Amino acid sequence: MTTPAASHGYVLTLSCADQPGIVHAVSGALLEANCNITDSQQYGNPVTGTFFMRVAVETTTAYAQLHDQLAVIAEQFSLTWTLNATGAPVRTLIMASKAAHCLNDLLFLQRSGTLPVEIPAIVSNHMDLKPLADFYGIPFHYIPVTADTKAEAEAALLALVAELDVELVVLARYMQVLSDDLCTALAGRAINIHHSFLPSFKGARPYHQAHARGVKIIGATAHYVTAVLDEGPIIEQEVIRVDHGHSAEKFVSMGRAVEARTLAQAVQWHAEHRVLLDGHRTVVFA
Amino acid sequence: MTTPAASHGYVLTLSCADQPGIVHAVSGALLEANCNITDSQQYGNPVTGTFFMRVAVETTTAYAQLHDQLAVIAEQFSLTWTLNATGAPVRTLIMASKAAHCLNDLLFLQRSGTLPVEIPAIVSNHMDLKPLADFYGIPFHYIPVTADTKAEAEAALLALVAELDVELVVLARYMQVLSDDLCTALAGRAINIHHSFLPSFKGARPYHQAHARGVKIIGATAHYVTAVLDEGPIIEQEVIRVDHGHSAEKFVSMGRAVEARTLAQAVQWHAEHRVLLDGHRTVVFA
Amino acid sequence: MTTPAASHGYVLTLSCADQPGIVHAVSGALLEANCNITDSQQYGNPVTGTFFMRVAVETTTAYAQLHDQLAVIAEQFSLTWTLNATGAPVRTLIMASKAAHCLNDLLFLQRSGTLPVEIPAIVSNHMDLKPLADFYGIPFHYIPVTADTKAEAEAALLALVAELDVELVVLARYMQVLSDDLCTALAGRAINIHHSFLPSFKGARPYHQAHARGVKIIGATAHYVTAVLDEGPIIEQEVIRVDHGHSAEKFVSMGRAVEARTLAQAVQWHAEHRVLLDGHRTVVFA
Amino acid sequence: MTTPAASHGYVLTLSCADQPGIVHAVSGALLEANCNITDSQQYGNPVTGTFFMRVAVETTTAYAQLHDQLAVIAEQFSLTWTLNATGAPVRTLIMASKAAHCLNDLLFLQRSGTLPVEIPAIVSNHMDLKPLADFYGIPFHYIPVTADTKAEAEAALLALVAELDVELVVLARYMQVLSDDLCTALAGRAINIHHSFLPSFKGARPYHQAHARGVKIIGATAHYVTAVLDEGPIIEQEVIRVDHGHSAEKFVSMGRAVEARTLAQAVQWHAEHRVLLDGHRTVVFA
Repeated sequence: MTTPAASHGYVLTLSCADQPGIVHAVSGALLEANCNITDSQQYGNPVTGTFFMRVAVETTTAYAQLHDQLAVIAEQFSLTWTLNATGAPVRTLIMASKAAHCLNDLLFLQRSGTLPVEIPAIVSNHMDLKPLADFYGIPFHYIPVTADTKAEAEAALLALVAELDVELVVLARYMQVLSDDLCTALAGRAINIHHSFLPSFKGARPYHQAHARGVKIIGATAHYVTAVLDEGPIIEQEVIRVDHGHSAEKFVSMGRAVEARTLAQAVQWHAEHRVLLDGHRTVVFA
Repeated sequence: MTTPAASHGYVLTLSCADQPGIVHAVSGALLEANCNITDSQQYGNPVTGTFFMRVAVETTTAYAQLHDQLAVIAEQFSLTWTLNATGAPVRTLIMASKAAHCLNDLLFLQRSGTLPVEIPAIVSNHMDLKPLADFYGIPFHYIPVTADTKAEAEAALLALVAELDVELVVLARYMQVLSDDLCTALAGRAINIHHSFLPSFKGARPYHQAHARGVKIIGATAHYVTAVLDEGPIIEQEVIRVDHGHSAEKFVSMGRAVEARTLAQAVQWHAEHRVLLDGHRTVVFA
Repeated sequence: MTTPAASHGYVLTLSCADQPGIVHAVSGALLEANCNITDSQQYGNPVTGTFFMRVAVETTTAYAQLHDQLAVIAEQFSLTWTLNATGAPVRTLIMASKAAHCLNDLLFLQRSGTLPVEIPAIVSNHMDLKPLADFYGIPFHYIPVTADTKAEAEAALLALVAELDVELVVLARYMQVLSDDLCTALAGRAINIHHSFLPSFKGARPYHQAHARGVKIIGATAHYVTAVLDEGPIIEQEVIRVDHGHSAEKFVSMGRAVEARTLAQAVQWHAEHRVLLDGHRTVVFA
Repeated sequence: MTTPAASHGYVLTLSCADQPGIVHAVSGALLEANCNITDSQQYGNPVTGTFFMRVAVETTTAYAQLHDQLAVIAEQFSLTWTLNATGAPVRTLIMASKAAHCLNDLLFLQRSGTLPVEIPAIVSNHMDLKPLADFYGIPFHYIPVTADTKAEAEAALLALVAELDVELVVLARYMQVLSDDLCTALAGRAINIHHSFLPSFKGARPYHQAHARGVKIIGATAHYVTAVLDEGPIIEQEVIRVDHGHSAEKFVSMGRAVEARTLAQAVQWHAEHRVLLDGHRTVVFA
């Protein structure tokens, strides 16, 4: 079929209690709105009885009208759902400390059009990364954190999130543990990178733990932040081989590249609306 | 939702010229037949304008009735389609020569329930693999091939395919080039394993070619057979790292494991009705 | 240089406290014995101060003579060392229970010449795998194990090990925990395959643990057996990607192939004298 | 053994016609110079009869003295050899055009200490990457190239190479074919990244070729530059999986990360003196 010039792309995601008729109802609403389905994935978790769906469509219908038509279905089937314009940038705040590798990758991939995000702010508890933020022309917010000022610092962050209309917070090797309250406030919209193949080597110095254990593969894990440290729903994991000749410091150096690309992949999938929460697991329609 | 004890699983695959309403029509027919969608993937190729869909459902409806209801939709949208009971074994004939590794893996995986196939016959141009066939209790057909008897041998094979109701022919390192006529007769239902990462190193002795070129990664390619040698639609590829210390013979030895698992994966996906043809490419709903 | 027809290949491995002159002394002894070095790797662990070396040579000198010449160096530098004819089969006893996949791979790879081992016995606490042993013509020893007979069963195993001159015991998904005494008796010459990416998911049902945690990659770990369960020195690890659509049972099925090839790789490296112990880590000269 | 504070690290590489006594002679000279071997790899190519060796040592001996002592051995065995201080930065000139991903990675990895190189100049036929060069404080040389000015441009490059004492030229997606003369002038010290898994898809638009062929894995190849396009000795290759849903443009986008890390790995190994030429293959002591 020919796609008229004025067509728009949208991505619909939904989850709900599994029941017959969902796909038929949704596809009916999409058909009524002149949507052509270009890509779709559906999955029913047989254990939890939850149904998940992601649909990408092309249509001449405007967002508001499509949203209204889908809202009827959403009401009927008690959907948890989102509707977004394809490729519309997700407003993303990045937090980092001193290590630059994850931030550098995210900024480069945003600039080169790979990551559909816009970055209204970078927040750090150190000044080291300001020049990198400046190079990319992104406002840099220095929010130092001490035991005494932690509550204050987190309040400042939440104020920024609200003020800048931030949809996603990315912890790009931000070396502070967030309070339970902050984790709760950002539930489902904060992604962290942990520098091990979880659940192995939680906590501090995971590469040194891995080296001491003598593993032959190391990895990194991108996950949503939850109040329990390193226990949030996993979005993506990547690994690389190591050998006896590599010191713990070499693990750290080799691991940086893995951390950066694992985090970037998780952010990309999140920003493309491919990640849906299924309890403390994720459904990733990659 | 609760799944009654008498429910059946089916897998529907379809492709057609892309047009609005397909998913709605199909999901409508499925809903009418009391089908619950447990898994589905859809893809529209924007270049060729072809739409592809795979749906797994659970239902109490019998096969014949479901088939009849879907046939109406198939007619309406000019679908190329299949409907199969989930996990129903695909009748698979395996051809091999002297090398046992691919055959050994396929037989083991069939026996252990990983591959949803049944194997009514093994055909070989040598006697070497008969003991392995005997161990698994599978009829072994010795069909020698010389330049003079090739046409005759291929006729014997096709007779077996017809007689045994064979749905899939797997060339598990079968070291004879099939005639164009045989390739045509088996189009879309014959899978070959080539021992290189195609399109690199077509033809004979690919590991020796790879060694001479000094590559750092070798691989294997499972593809549908077509009349043009090593040019058929690729289903799956796998690779492993090699280094300067490995001889060409070591490449051969290391490559066996990759060939076996690449072919097994392709056969599994085919037998689970996950592979759809899109010109000389494949859509794999893995 | 030309290699005369009567030349032999040998593999020398050694470790010792690091000190200047080791390589010079060893290479001097090898030169004196007319050895040509075809492959060698050396590694000094800067933390433990231990030096490791593996040398493959070609020579016309007989084993006994070479051994005597090297014994002088070994004495001088207090070496822990081995000298083996290249490719000489390591006498390997395989233990298994009901699952066939690891055993099937090991037997196939032994038969096809990939694994330089000979297998004088298969020991199992069940009868299920006897036909497979029979097919390969390997004596099958049924040694059932109950809480009451465990000591007796382990004694029978050790008697077999002694009687058959067994150099390596491979636990190919043998589903019994060995006693501390047996672990000690087999220290450094028993390899186990654990069906997780250690140290994640020790103990029982690791795939179900992994599924519950929602990991995106699963793996297998081959390690030397020690008295502390799943804590022995790791020889090799392999991983594969999984996704939300895979059930815990599917993890089990997918994991089998990874277990089999991880164990086979570890056995191959061990039998090629590529694995040296460095405390509870391994040096693998792959 | 204890390493005194004033010790130096050196890396020796050598190749020569295989013959007995090389290792003994080299280790003798190293011992005489009070060198402790911390890491070494040796390999004899049985086909070409060439022997390769890399040794890392710690010693209190100064470079000049060690060099002189080794020169005697080098003379005796007709060695092709290098001796470098461990970690001493290799003077590296980077050439790029408009695409920033490889350059960005190389500069970041140099700055963060992962790549032991120093970068006295970036050369480009476009101005696009000047801001990135400026950010890292590296002189940017704009040398435009047209059919008419190609000889002149290459002369300017060679002048820079000479003037800046450049040891390595890296073509970081530099989109001009070098003349045969330039290739010859830079033989063994120019590394290119080709955006395909060579020898598949030589020449222009490899991702589009790969997409048209329907491959399931794409890759990148880092190789030394030779006069025959995309035929130079391969240093490193990396791959990633793709599927039917990815357009050729998506291949391009996904491939960037692979290109960047493949090139960075090749540069790192070269700069660590781990890559030795063996005809048109490489020995990589990784």
